[in-house]
Amino acid sequence: MNQIICTVDVALLTLAEDGLKVGLLRREREPFKSVAALPGGYIHQESDNDARDAARRVLMDKAGIDPPYLEQLATFSGPARDPRGWSVSIAYYALVPAQLLEQAGERGMTLASADHPPQLPFDHRAIVAAAVARLRSKSQYSSLPCHLAGETFTLPQLQKVYETLMNEPLNKVSFRRKMTEMDMLDPVEGRLESAGAHRPAQVYRLKAAFRDELQLLERGL
Amino acid sequence: MNQIICTVDVALLTLAEDGLKVGLLRREREPFKSVAALPGGYIHQESDNDARDAARRVLMDKAGIDPPYLEQLATFSGPARDPRGWSVSIAYYALVPAQLLEQAGERGMTLASADHPPQLPFDHRAIVAAAVARLRSKSQYSSLPCHLAGETFTLPQLQKVYETLMNEPLNKVSFRRKMTEMDMLDPVEGRLESAGAHRPAQVYRLKAAFRDELQLLERGL
Repeated sequence: MNQIICTVDVALLTLAEDGLKVGLLRREREPFKSVAALPGGYIHQESDNDARDAARRVLMDKAGIDPPYLEQLATFSGPARDPRGWSVSIAYYALVPAQLLEQAGERGMTLASADHPPQLPFDHRAIVAAAVARLRSKSQYSSLPCHLAGETFTLPQLQKVYETLMNEPLNKVSFRRKMTEMDMLDPVEGRLESAGAHRPAQVYRLKAAFRDELQLLERGL
Repeated sequence: MNQIICTVDVALLTLAEDGLKVGLLRREREPFKSVAALPGGYIHQESDNDARDAARRVLMDKAGIDPPYLEQLATFSGPARDPRGWSVSIAYYALVPAQLLEQAGERGMTLASADHPPQLPFDHRAIVAAAVARLRSKSQYSSLPCHLAGETFTLPQLQKVYETLMNEPLNKVSFRRKMTEMDMLDPVEGRLESAGAHRPAQVYRLKAAFRDELQLLERGL
């Protein structure tokens, strides 16, 4: 029987005005006490039904966040990544709209650049890099970016989210055609949002069917 | 400190004349002694450098196979999937051309339908289903199927592999254009293979650069 350390870690990603961010918390315990790191913790055998459950519990206990989107990323393992010994970290990434992060700020969460994160303990930088790569890649052909747009949004707002994630400007007509093709948005009855000199824009939300499962585009954006 | 059981399991996939197959071995120990299951085993903290290393060791020790392609699939976990207690299985899938499986047959490996596997212990059917879904999905836009085609192959042979994985016939001209676009094949100098009434076909192998990393197609097949 082996005595491997089993943990979960979560790369919590959000979009701020100046780009993609990852949430960091100062560690309460050794190793790396007081150092900013990804939220993480041991699996609790008594109460967790699986690793996903552990990731959700860690985010709620440590940051007060129930993320609208949480996906298993990859498992990181080896004898050297944790000074306590041979360890396995089942890593997840969560997408959270910026508005939802206010309460996390009160709990001490800080945001760092996800594309150029600072030094982090363990292999947390590798976890962040894998999360960013997965998010940017899936943004090209799925509903994934909607989870960063907030509960409701206009099409120009959603297009800006896609553009930030894909790192390129998108053609407005073709973007709208692709969104229609994915058939993933519900108009919010009677809600229009004024947008400067433009005429007011319809407000949408993600259809309930695509809150837990992604909608895919056959040919990409 | 937790006492979680940490294992690796491998869904070894190959293509036979009648479709996609998964390799099964009779278990040597309890639980489920003598039952056919995916090759798997504990992580060895003394000797394994990471979970991938453990997966490779398990395949070599139990089946005598060093797979040309091995990728982490997902981690399965929970209190009920293993009768010994709360467990984590870091699952991998391996792609092996049929020719390489001969020695595994001598070690007792049997092949079952990967699309409709028999009853299996633990959550091994869920692991097989996830591996098949990953393979079929990635086949649409990457070099992944080449690892099932053998060390060398003609373009008609490779097209047949892609067609089997994608479950649809492909247009020959468009298939060849996409293969050229991916720029992943080297012709084997001076090797032509006769193909019935057709003129002999050039023999190819995967470029060295794409043996460990996939080559991707921007728009899919």
